[in-house]
Amino acid sequence: MNSRPQTPLLDTVDTPHDLRKLPPEALRQLADELRDEMISAVGSTGGHLGSGLGVVELTVAIHYVFDTPTDKLVWDVGHQAYPHKILTGRRDRIRTLRHGGGLSGFTKRSESEYDPFGAAHSSTSISAALGFAIANKLNDAPGKGIAVIGDGAMSAGMAYEAMNNAEAAGNRLVVILNDNDMSIAPPVGGLSAYLARIVSSSEYLGLRSLAKRLSAKLSRRLNHGLEKAEEFTRGMVTGGTLFEELGFYYVGPIDGHNLEHLIPVLENVRDSEQGPILVHVVTKKGKGYAPAENSADKYHGVQKFDVITGEQKKSAGGPPAYQNVFGDTLARLAETDDRIVAITAAMPSGTGVDRFAKAHPDRSFDVGIAEQHAVTFAAGLAAQGMRPFCAIYSTFLQRAFDQVVHDVAIQNLPVRFAIDRAGLVGADGCTHAGSFDVTYLATLPNMVVMAAADEAELVHMTYTAAQYDAGPIAFRYPRGNGTGVALPGEPELLEIGKGRLVREGTKIAILSLGTRLAEAIKAADALEAKGLSTTVADLRFAKPLDTRLIDRLMRTHEVVVTVEEGAIGGLGAHVLTHASDAGLLDGGLKIRTMRLPDLFQDHDDPARQYDEAGLNAPQIVDTVLKALRHNSAGTDQRVEEARA
Amino acid sequence: MNSRPQTPLLDTVDTPHDLRKLPPEALRQLADELRDEMISAVGSTGGHLGSGLGVVELTVAIHYVFDTPTDKLVWDVGHQAYPHKILTGRRDRIRTLRHGGGLSGFTKRSESEYDPFGAAHSSTSISAALGFAIANKLNDAPGKGIAVIGDGAMSAGMAYEAMNNAEAAGNRLVVILNDNDMSIAPPVGGLSAYLARIVSSSEYLGLRSLAKRLSAKLSRRLNHGLEKAEEFTRGMVTGGTLFEELGFYYVGPIDGHNLEHLIPVLENVRDSEQGPILVHVVTKKGKGYAPAENSADKYHGVQKFDVITGEQKKSAGGPPAYQNVFGDTLARLAETDDRIVAITAAMPSGTGVDRFAKAHPDRSFDVGIAEQHAVTFAAGLAAQGMRPFCAIYSTFLQRAFDQVVHDVAIQNLPVRFAIDRAGLVGADGCTHAGSFDVTYLATLPNMVVMAAADEAELVHMTYTAAQYDAGPIAFRYPRGNGTGVALPGEPELLEIGKGRLVREGTKIAILSLGTRLAEAIKAADALEAKGLSTTVADLRFAKPLDTRLIDRLMRTHEVVVTVEEGAIGGLGAHVLTHASDAGLLDGGLKIRTMRLPDLFQDHDDPARQYDEAGLNAPQIVDTVLKALRHNSAGTDQRVEEARA
Repeated sequence: MNSRPQTPLLDTVDTPHDLRKLPPEALRQLADELRDEMISAVGSTGGHLGSGLGVVELTVAIHYVFDTPTDKLVWDVGHQAYPHKILTGRRDRIRTLRHGGGLSGFTKRSESEYDPFGAAHSSTSISAALGFAIANKLNDAPGKGIAVIGDGAMSAGMAYEAMNNAEAAGNRLVVILNDNDMSIAPPVGGLSAYLARIVSSSEYLGLRSLAKRLSAKLSRRLNHGLEKAEEFTRGMVTGGTLFEELGFYYVGPIDGHNLEHLIPVLENVRDSEQGPILVHVVTKKGKGYAPAENSADKYHGVQKFDVITGEQKKSAGGPPAYQNVFGDTLARLAETDDRIVAITAAMPSGTGVDRFAKAHPDRSFDVGIAEQHAVTFAAGLAAQGMRPFCAIYSTFLQRAFDQVVHDVAIQNLPVRFAIDRAGLVGADGCTHAGSFDVTYLATLPNMVVMAAADEAELVHMTYTAAQYDAGPIAFRYPRGNGTGVALPGEPELLEIGKGRLVREGTKIAILSLGTRLAEAIKAADALEAKGLSTTVADLRFAKPLDTRLIDRLMRTHEVVVTVEEGAIGGLGAHVLTHASDAGLLDGGLKIRTMRLPDLFQDHDDPARQYDEAGLNAPQIVDTVLKALRHNSAGTDQRVEEARA
Repeated sequence: MNSRPQTPLLDTVDTPHDLRKLPPEALRQLADELRDEMISAVGSTGGHLGSGLGVVELTVAIHYVFDTPTDKLVWDVGHQAYPHKILTGRRDRIRTLRHGGGLSGFTKRSESEYDPFGAAHSSTSISAALGFAIANKLNDAPGKGIAVIGDGAMSAGMAYEAMNNAEAAGNRLVVILNDNDMSIAPPVGGLSAYLARIVSSSEYLGLRSLAKRLSAKLSRRLNHGLEKAEEFTRGMVTGGTLFEELGFYYVGPIDGHNLEHLIPVLENVRDSEQGPILVHVVTKKGKGYAPAENSADKYHGVQKFDVITGEQKKSAGGPPAYQNVFGDTLARLAETDDRIVAITAAMPSGTGVDRFAKAHPDRSFDVGIAEQHAVTFAAGLAAQGMRPFCAIYSTFLQRAFDQVVHDVAIQNLPVRFAIDRAGLVGADGCTHAGSFDVTYLATLPNMVVMAAADEAELVHMTYTAAQYDAGPIAFRYPRGNGTGVALPGEPELLEIGKGRLVREGTKIAILSLGTRLAEAIKAADALEAKGLSTTVADLRFAKPLDTRLIDRLMRTHEVVVTVEEGAIGGLGAHVLTHASDAGLLDGGLKIRTMRLPDLFQDHDDPARQYDEAGLNAPQIVDTVLKALRHNSAGTDQRVEEARA
């Protein structure tokens, strides 16, 4: 058990209003206490650590200088906002982070007026801040939009789109580029190299020269010619021209851990009559906590840990994680197949592509936070005969939906989509849930959509996808560890559009897609115990459906229930649509579709989330029993119920 | 009737192989003939004209210099590729452009090996070309990737994502920036201003200085220091540093209509050992055809026209276009509501936002080709109390799907989505069809989804959306003109989730969503003529469903048919899911869902497309009659059918 740190100054600060009463010379101590408090809290909860540690001083400085919450502070992604939460009235709940009923691990509008815009996906902050800035401008109301965005997030197209549109906001928009040369993995690409050149080629600006340059730059008294000349010079010296070419005033780079530099710079920025302004701040992820600073991933995301030693609570071992099963399988397949390449969008370890990359570095591509590019790049590779695997989480693939439609499905190109984090994901909450992929993929012509029931199935599906050259194919699987089934020595080639019967009964049929299969089997056991003979099928394919199997089961069973880890429009909808098309419902069939509920579920333990969703075994049993009891002439029963 | 131009030289060129046999001095004449042929062809077919005219010389030069189709030439968007089609074996079909069974108005893989990657949406070309380049590099095979992309398309995030990843391709990637300072509308934003500064601040490079600089620049013999110095100088002179900061070698700007400059520059680029290279070419949209050059939109898209006068065939008048009804209605509503703002992504006239902008310039935002930013910007505006309308075509909203989910739906922010081009769109074909929006929107919690049955309904829905502050709301409507109903003097506030009965019968119920309503009514007439009493409902809402109305109709009718202009997963799926949940199917119901077929339909006349889709009145009648005849014990009948 970690002891609580001593935080006498922080104890006096509940909101930024308290903070602003402190003299500037007290801020160093406040930052130190804030850092200690955050380490202590995350030590007890687990969560994102490295990013928050990197912005402790920045958080203090922003709230000290700007008039939050009137000024709208938008943290990109939001997983670095724990210090912000502590300073904005949520310290008393900080040890509930990411636990059911507790604080979200990201910013969230419903938590605080200091979270004007929630996040969790990357690169949305500039657009949102611009929205606030323009709204206030139109209404002649006070309040700037302030976006704090990491260098990794800057690689996403939407950040660029927003910068390209920023000019209209004038001095109401401030973008703070938090450059730690690291998002989750080290960032990639031209922008990253560019930022590194800026930082390496110029000293951090000293306080005096900085203040001087700023006051010269941001005043309107300079005539245009001088300003232009100064701009060119500065561009050459600091290299900040990329942002200036997009219409920003560039300021930086400055040391993001030095409050004596941060405060006056931000004050100048705040008071500037010109804008939009981009402040380039250099920070260290994991700053101020040795175990984090010394770790390769800077303690990006951690389990509960011992604050003294930094040692994280070991996860319980057990079966391999799905992502690793995928990565290892793909790496093995690639040993005998030169055409296989793997693509990740800044998530090499989260997707298991790191394992592939170790074995096949030339055929592994980390494109940065750039899902749109990832998919169309894969389409280009496929068009030239390669067998690309795009490994992207379900929720992040939403970023590339148009590319999936326009570049892959319409052209019927054999891009393989390895979709991790399908279904509910636990502590990351609704922003990271993989709820919609079956719906948004299975609606597309040419697309094949599979879901793995366990890690052995994932091996088969990875292999089947590799062998399938007829068009696009997707396979989804959940976050976390497998079920513990034996992994096959040799992968099996699955027949496209064929499910499997797991057990055969006569009265009830449960059609499962994905890892709810285990719950379906449990439910079948319970039903059998009640004397109800139950069939369980693992459909494997949401598209194309195994219509032969489905038709047979519908014709021979009294109740048919579909179960899936996805929202409306997925498996259940496809089964119903097929059944009604084929007239299978004409004579009456007690058919029910079980799916994720029509709401965004908060973060919690995954098992509890599935309970809330109504997708565990008892609820399957319940659905079956209710259907059995339901009077076919539904009208009458309903009327009776209403009268009762 | 336009007469065919004299094209003696072009008549000898069927493919780029023929072209490459010509001496360079013959290319001017070839380009002139190519331009004449294109004008003549589009005069007889209608289609995209201005963009093609702007790239006549570029098309000739690229095919002359590069080894197509081994070098993979990817035209961004593809609507400028008519000259390319004429030069690549498709001249004999060029007068079938955009007509049923004829050539596509965009590039298309199935048409020619010279179209290695199809397009129609913007900004995909660099990613695709990079895919080709990397595949060939991995396989040690010949062939560069060449992307030709307009300055407007450069404003989209995915172009930036691709540039950020281009370095790995080395000299196998060439990006030709076709800068005509105009996409469909004049481009906007920081990038556009930046490109204009480059072009205005530097002369086009003369042949001699260009060749000299290029050979110096692109040779490896220069030592690194010199090269670096030269890079800085060039950056300052030409301003091309933005692209260099992303890792490109920048060459330009050069006159894209001067073949004597284009050819040697492209030869140097082709032979360079360094890369990736960005060639900045300046062209004039509509070049070489006076009526196009003199028109505001440069004849971007035209009807058939008289080549001599440039006069376009008038469209037949008739009811107002949906987009204009939307734009006018919104402009009127904004007169008394300061909170209304409108956002378009580079389609001011296509969406009708131009009409709004004329009345309310301060509250109209054209963000360029940047749908992702458009949506999150709107979310920011909504979070600050504005009433933003995001007017984006159904197919282009796919680009912003994640922003709709993550920034709008999860946060339940009242962004209004005005979704034009819903359903099939005719000559633009499957890339522009609005097939999926109901599916991908109605699966989202918090989302309200409406579809207008006619232009009067669109007025009501625009008003209803404006008044709805409880969360996100979308309304869809088709391309083209309304049905001719009277427009209401005052808009009506629709009750959320309530449909309307259009006519009431007893035996057959047709549940319509959207403009198929007219066909549903025709079908009802035909059914009544057969003695089948038919109800027609306009559901108005795909989400939330009018479950009270639906339940009543299901309980009182023998056959229920849903009709919608969308793919599987939309209205029909939601109706079926509700019905099975509620047990309404338990006792048997002949229910059928009519929707777009599970294939990407080629371009054609919209009425014929709907006939092919099976969504016209006769097919509705047919579906009803088949359902009526269908033996409830489907098994037996099927067996009998099989035996017959």
